Amino acid sequence: MIFRFELLGADTGSKARLGLIKTPHGDIETPVFMPVGTQATVKTMTPDDLKSLGAGIILSNTYHLYLRPGHELIQKLGGLHGFMGWDRPILTDSGGYQVFSHSELRKITKEGVKFQSHLDGSYHFLTPEAAVNIQEALGADIIMCFDECAPYPSTYDYLKESMELTLRWAKRCKDAKKREDQALFGIVQGGMDRDLRLKCVEGLVDTGFDGYAIGGLSVGETKPLMYEVAGYTAEALPGDRPRYLMGVGTPEDLVECVALGVDMFDCVMPTRNARTGTLFTSFGKLTIKNAQYADDPAPVDPECGCYTCSNFSRAYLRHLYHAGEILAMRLNTLHNLHYYLDLMKNIRKAIKENNFMDFREDFYNKMEVKKC
Amino acid sequence: MIFRFELLGADTGSKARLGLIKTPHGDIETPVFMPVGTQATVKTMTPDDLKSLGAGIILSNTYHLYLRPGHELIQKLGGLHGFMGWDRPILTDSGGYQVFSHSELRKITKEGVKFQSHLDGSYHFLTPEAAVNIQEALGADIIMCFDECAPYPSTYDYLKESMELTLRWAKRCKDAKKREDQALFGIVQGGMDRDLRLKCVEGLVDTGFDGYAIGGLSVGETKPLMYEVAGYTAEALPGDRPRYLMGVGTPEDLVECVALGVDMFDCVMPTRNARTGTLFTSFGKLTIKNAQYADDPAPVDPECGCYTCSNFSRAYLRHLYHAGEILAMRLNTLHNLHYYLDLMKNIRKAIKENNFMDFREDFYNKMEVKKC
Repeated sequence: MIFRFELLGADTGSKARLGLIKTPHGDIETPVFMPVGTQATVKTMTPDDLKSLGAGIILSNTYHLYLRPGHELIQKLGGLHGFMGWDRPILTDSGGYQVFSHSELRKITKEGVKFQSHLDGSYHFLTPEAAVNIQEALGADIIMCFDECAPYPSTYDYLKESMELTLRWAKRCKDAKKREDQALFGIVQGGMDRDLRLKCVEGLVDTGFDGYAIGGLSVGETKPLMYEVAGYTAEALPGDRPRYLMGVGTPEDLVECVALGVDMFDCVMPTRNARTGTLFTSFGKLTIKNAQYADDPAPVDPECGCYTCSNFSRAYLRHLYHAGEILAMRLNTLHNLHYYLDLMKNIRKAIKENNFMDFREDFYNKMEVKKC
Repeated sequence: MIFRFELLGADTGSKARLGLIKTPHGDIETPVFMPVGTQATVKTMTPDDLKSLGAGIILSNTYHLYLRPGHELIQKLGGLHGFMGWDRPILTDSGGYQVFSHSELRKITKEGVKFQSHLDGSYHFLTPEAAVNIQEALGADIIMCFDECAPYPSTYDYLKESMELTLRWAKRCKDAKKREDQALFGIVQGGMDRDLRLKCVEGLVDTGFDGYAIGGLSVGETKPLMYEVAGYTAEALPGDRPRYLMGVGTPEDLVECVALGVDMFDCVMPTRNARTGTLFTSFGKLTIKNAQYADDPAPVDPECGCYTCSNFSRAYLRHLYHAGEILAMRLNTLHNLHYYLDLMKNIRKAIKENNFMDFREDFYNKMEVKKC
């Protein structure tokens, strides 16, 4: 097995862990944030940009790539790595979440999910086996089991049935897997119900996966509830496997969930917010389009060392934003990803130095959380 | 005077010239192509990108910057150079051309032009003096006289009156100019009429400018007519001043007009075409959205050494384009600007080696001009 997870250290004041994930395309230091490259590109960024930002792994979306340009085409052109010119690790999701959130029409059966493409309305049928086959064609280093992400809120009965379906599908994914050079992660579902979550963990661990993801969070529940569910789920998962909290989250979420023992994160927030002009800084969020920045010669964040902050004023970025210039989205994305990746680097450093809880306190002291 | 033009050589088989323009922000090797940065950004590119492409000077548009974010704001933030983080030379146009082409409502008087903003419909009055004042606030190294670009076709009487107005305005621009660290170029108008063009040259030279531009071309006339007018106008201009052909053009136009003795060019073509998926190559234009490139693993131009061609396939670029990804516009822009700037570099090399006409022949032999 080429894939391996090494636990390098742990913080004694929290459940935070320091680790290393070894993959065929290089090592990933954890805790890690994975920038999202939905359509085989992290929006506005080149692979060189991502490397200069220190991105260790990126995520790409199976649903989108399956529909356009198609996994077979990507396979023919060297897999995702070759296609998009990224030679570091990649994780692909299974498409399950997107089928549920993007598709107008979808029908779940035991066998799989029938859905309509958001691009042209064509009908497709995705099964656990198909999701694995597609991900094998895409060729990511880490692939995900096909799961159902239940809506929030759902009844106990719905959640139970959905979780059991997810468990059966996980088994089928493992059985369908043929490539030896890809790691397969199981996904814990069960809504906000502790018993269902723990049963799901048990079932997945029985089957056995290279890593475990916590799915079905950040779907509308409160923050304390999310942290609670993430916390007991992470704790129940085996310590010798990476734990990945899917689709989360804000900088605060990352800090909180690292403290709960989560190793991996992904979220569109830094990239999407960048494109709509919301910038993350050491003192909170900054809405660059606001009039107060019209003649502000300061960089976005005076403490930030990114290319954007080293070279441009808030006034210039505001001008680019209002003028509808693409460079606005690009410079904002660069800054936000730098913020997220730098935050994770500092988190890893703090765990290494066994003072993560001090780091966390400093983080909150600096941060004056502003609504945006 | 900080501004100086040195003639370094001339091709004996044509009128092509090799030169060096010295400005407060560095030297510009001519013949030169100036990428267009309308709103204080060459669309999708950072200053670092432009430097890595070897851009020696860029152009920015006074009309747009005057309306948004305003020249006074830019002046306050360090002028255009400081505002956009570009420390190499900049040329600003006078706003005249944009007033005529963008503005719904405009009224020309002897005094100046009243026009309505394309952004908010507000009324503005631009005079030669105002155009100079605004350009002094923007702080480019080379600024342009306020002129009228007559529509094509126009009657002789209209062209004559318009040219004479342009001459009087040129004088007023020179009188209004206060900054010693900026060069002021006069603009030759006169439509497609040889006598009017030559009279305009005479009048401008009488007043005396640091350089001379040929305006009012590429407005709908045929290519042979454009080359004819550019040819006799360039020939009539003083040999010891740079000659700038405004808003031109295709790669073929650059080669032809260099042969006629033109030193400077600007055009939105490489950047605008990039954003709509038309790429310039050594063998002609390539429309990246075409189905034939869907699974093409080759780079856009196998002879090109740009970042795009070194790292990505036509298939990937086509995917990005169809997926509406910003990276498509960025990678395409990078390629097209590389093509234009590399072409100019090769043109300069050929003039230096006194074999420009051989270069020109090779250029056409390679090029299979395709309509796009």
